[in-house]
Amino acid sequence: MSSVTGLPELIKAKVRSIPDFPKKGVLFRDITPILKDPAAFEAVVNSIADFFSAKHAEYIAGIEARGFIIGAAVAHRLGIGFVPIRKKGKLPYKTVSKSYQLEYNTETIEVHVDAVEPGKKVGIVDDLLATGGTSEAACELIEQIGGKVVGVGFIIELTDLKGREKLKGREIFSLVQY
Amino acid sequence: MSSVTGLPELIKAKVRSIPDFPKKGVLFRDITPILKDPAAFEAVVNSIADFFSAKHAEYIAGIEARGFIIGAAVAHRLGIGFVPIRKKGKLPYKTVSKSYQLEYNTETIEVHVDAVEPGKKVGIVDDLLATGGTSEAACELIEQIGGKVVGVGFIIELTDLKGREKLKGREIFSLVQY
Repeated sequence: MSSVTGLPELIKAKVRSIPDFPKKGVLFRDITPILKDPAAFEAVVNSIADFFSAKHAEYIAGIEARGFIIGAAVAHRLGIGFVPIRKKGKLPYKTVSKSYQLEYNTETIEVHVDAVEPGKKVGIVDDLLATGGTSEAACELIEQIGGKVVGVGFIIELTDLKGREKLKGREIFSLVQY
Repeated sequence: MSSVTGLPELIKAKVRSIPDFPKKGVLFRDITPILKDPAAFEAVVNSIADFFSAKHAEYIAGIEARGFIIGAAVAHRLGIGFVPIRKKGKLPYKTVSKSYQLEYNTETIEVHVDAVEPGKKVGIVDDLLATGGTSEAACELIEQIGGKVVGVGFIIELTDLKGREKLKGREIFSLVQY
């Protein structure tokens, strides 16, 4: 992976597709083989870091739980701070929260009220863009506490699920698409 | 934080102590102010990375969820692979699992059976060492799949809870102690 040419193909070759997880009919894209491969992990982190570097991000906010893995490494790479966006009830200090609809239920995520200072540029990171519900809620949370969302970065985008429409008007980066 | 002298004190000054979270009587040590501060985040990651570099770790395994944040940044820093140790039911491929006793209930964590190759040196990372139950289960999981645990690294150690006794015989690093 010394060249950027063909990087998406090299990353795709590392994604493990697992049928019927977490439930029947879903083809789960498992990124753990990427994370365990030093070259693939580094390439993914650097790609997303380059995207946010160009946008002058001052914080990276990662969405629990796989977004923590990629987001924290991206923040470290860029030498900037990391902000966890967590499921309801996990953050100990004062939070703002946002609920959004999933297929069969409602999910709520939260961020600390003082996670970023007003006006700061924030990049949002998760492993995978599906319907975009979680990412859009994450963007709105950051905006609610005064941050400016400069982009949303993913390893994988499932294009059929039209997450880009949900995130319309936002800058989106994904390394590989299915 | 250009000097290592006084680093634990500088990190301690960033930890936010929150009474009665997640339940009455518990003083929660909130590391989010460390994560959001570029210098503090980098210092923490580098300290833990130095510990595992000296032990020639070939993988970093992070424990869900805050261990993902520190562990992934440490793995990226060292240019080695990252392995997620997750709560039951979250990993999509074949897993081994380990249950352990908490104060009022039982918790189960899992790792993919192919997360590391037999004989590989693995460093375990979490944010905080309390009773050591989770960390010891994580060590045993890595050993169960053939890995060699070369150490366990934390930002914070709560010495009263005697986690070191639980992890007896293992190499332990913690940056600050309470």
